[in-house]
Amino acid sequence: MDYTFSDRVSQLKPSAIREILKFTSVPGIIPFAAGNPAPEAFPVEEIQKLSQEILSQNPILALQYSITEGYTPLREHLETYMKQKHNTGRDFDNIIITAGAQQVMDLSAKALCNEHDTVICENPSFIGSLNAFRSYNLKLCGIEVEEDGMNMEKLEQALKTEQNVRFIYTIPNFQNPSGVTMSFEKRKQMYQLAKKYNVIIIEDNPYGDIRFSGQDIPTIKSLDEDGIVIYAGSFSKVLSPGLRVGFCIAPEQIISKLVVCKQVSDVHTGIFNQILAYEFMTRCNYESHLERIRSIYRHKARLMMDLIEQHLTPYVTYTKVEGGLFTWCRLPDSVDMLQFCKAAIDKGVAVVPGTAFCMSADEPSQCFRLNYSTPTDEQIVKGLELLGQTIKSII
Amino acid sequence: MDYTFSDRVSQLKPSAIREILKFTSVPGIIPFAAGNPAPEAFPVEEIQKLSQEILSQNPILALQYSITEGYTPLREHLETYMKQKHNTGRDFDNIIITAGAQQVMDLSAKALCNEHDTVICENPSFIGSLNAFRSYNLKLCGIEVEEDGMNMEKLEQALKTEQNVRFIYTIPNFQNPSGVTMSFEKRKQMYQLAKKYNVIIIEDNPYGDIRFSGQDIPTIKSLDEDGIVIYAGSFSKVLSPGLRVGFCIAPEQIISKLVVCKQVSDVHTGIFNQILAYEFMTRCNYESHLERIRSIYRHKARLMMDLIEQHLTPYVTYTKVEGGLFTWCRLPDSVDMLQFCKAAIDKGVAVVPGTAFCMSADEPSQCFRLNYSTPTDEQIVKGLELLGQTIKSII
Repeated sequence: MDYTFSDRVSQLKPSAIREILKFTSVPGIIPFAAGNPAPEAFPVEEIQKLSQEILSQNPILALQYSITEGYTPLREHLETYMKQKHNTGRDFDNIIITAGAQQVMDLSAKALCNEHDTVICENPSFIGSLNAFRSYNLKLCGIEVEEDGMNMEKLEQALKTEQNVRFIYTIPNFQNPSGVTMSFEKRKQMYQLAKKYNVIIIEDNPYGDIRFSGQDIPTIKSLDEDGIVIYAGSFSKVLSPGLRVGFCIAPEQIISKLVVCKQVSDVHTGIFNQILAYEFMTRCNYESHLERIRSIYRHKARLMMDLIEQHLTPYVTYTKVEGGLFTWCRLPDSVDMLQFCKAAIDKGVAVVPGTAFCMSADEPSQCFRLNYSTPTDEQIVKGLELLGQTIKSII
Repeated sequence: MDYTFSDRVSQLKPSAIREILKFTSVPGIIPFAAGNPAPEAFPVEEIQKLSQEILSQNPILALQYSITEGYTPLREHLETYMKQKHNTGRDFDNIIITAGAQQVMDLSAKALCNEHDTVICENPSFIGSLNAFRSYNLKLCGIEVEEDGMNMEKLEQALKTEQNVRFIYTIPNFQNPSGVTMSFEKRKQMYQLAKKYNVIIIEDNPYGDIRFSGQDIPTIKSLDEDGIVIYAGSFSKVLSPGLRVGFCIAPEQIISKLVVCKQVSDVHTGIFNQILAYEFMTRCNYESHLERIRSIYRHKARLMMDLIEQHLTPYVTYTKVEGGLFTWCRLPDSVDMLQFCKAAIDKGVAVVPGTAFCMSADEPSQCFRLNYSTPTDEQIVKGLELLGQTIKSII
């Protein structure tokens, strides 16, 4: 049989960088291309204990069908927690539990956009979200990311000139891949621009709780008195990604559409996993758990940044990150970025070529992304040494 | 802010039957409108034991990110099991683990259909699948369900005359809601028609393993030498729906597109849940577990059918079911079906009006669906007595 696929899916083509990404899971390769939380960050003992309790005290609740909106105690607890900690949520807002924050992007694109509508993204941005938008045949309009976030002049220009802009997608904290955190000034500007041009903001904040230095900056959602921000949160980086539990706080009118879309997509998020997240948040000293995770990543990020200074500067410039899982390096213009990434693979180190995060795979990029959460300390030490050799052999 | 939603989602309107469905979760109402597996069918002790083992022996695997295709041992085991038991899968086929069978419908519609394409469904059919197709703005073409499945003449007529038919959606075993099982003859005819008109078949088989009387009929997928059948299976009815684990066996070219769509939707299905399904299948005498479930539903179905005979006939005709979770009743033409359903609610019994399963909410229906897996035996006895009073008060 000759298969015909939908237009939206047919245009999702494998790209050249796939060839490099394939090597990232080869045994023995140092995994700077990954994005997994550090295994030592998982609260294994607590999860064991809670799982046993849930399945002995409330097995039917944990195994039966549940409601699409999510486990009510988790929704209520998150509402209160997020309100107290991040001042998110007004009377017009509601909350839905999702299969990770990824599903917030999928459901939002489906509910808000017709094909060929435009979404504005940071350039570079998270490939998983970009592909979710692409999978609905949306036009991606990328706005340059500066040291303190999106260039606001270019954002306003795009809002003026692009057709059918449905939302602005942003990762304000420790952006993936650039590591950049948007300043409070720019958050306020973005909010005002979105309001002025009647466009929704999707604020994707998976790393917000992993700030290991500097001061927290208020979320964009905390400014939202007008009901224009969809906030996406996740337990993937702070508890476990394998559970696939995330959430979305947004105006009730939007949430009700996301519920309809989720119902026909997966009915509901695994209910045992939701109960586990709830019990963990409420019974396991969540704040000291977050502090422990931050100290793990503080250590790893500093180790990596010290070694970048030692082995890669002055050839390479990089983002001095204050949280999250990644840093972002820029090669000198004289170096071919893909050639560097391939040479690194040959040395035994996988990094992600910057083009992976561009609006189009044809866009030029001098950058590559390094992850410090997945590799061990020994791998970070060895990997940076090898990357140093790589750059010196190419320069 | 004034919210604008996508065309595909805007046309998903709440309907009149929602008003009745709302009552189904009211405490004290006898839940014949539900679709939950019987709580006593869950293998609680085995799940407790296996969960503890998984989280103590392999916690990082169970908590870390995993691959979109699904947990490899589960995929391999299911391939072998399904091949041996149902003769599904050829060299050109592959398998993906999904968030229940519901996600197979979502991903398949997304990957195979452009907006306004046509899908052919049994009329009546499962509302969750119909809504999944509607959510991609697809045209639903319903084909009458007879005692032995779809009317094949009408199916061929539709294949000849409808524009851009992308697939035929069928639940061949103990169809939801009609309870009908498609004959082997019709399965072969449907396969040949699909082949002749170059259209894919989605075979949704969540109830296949819950046959409690009569003989198994080969799956349509077992006939598939040409790569035209997408088979959807699920652990929801045989292990636990709360885990959200299902699977899809289909030609590799299709599976690879479903993988792309799933990756941008939820990254992967909860990995702990997948490991649990695998361990349960391979270590807990799966066949005797299925036999135990069948005996639970055999008992409940017979109890309900005996009481229908006692209280509802001759006014009502119904499907004598051999498996699954539902039976389907037809009221005499003189009775207003929605009025009957409302009167039943007033008596304290919730049933689902047949229009819920039609291609359009405006279609007339004289039918209603009864579920026997959720209510207790006492509720079945009491509920049928009340439905008997209801029909007699209306007739």
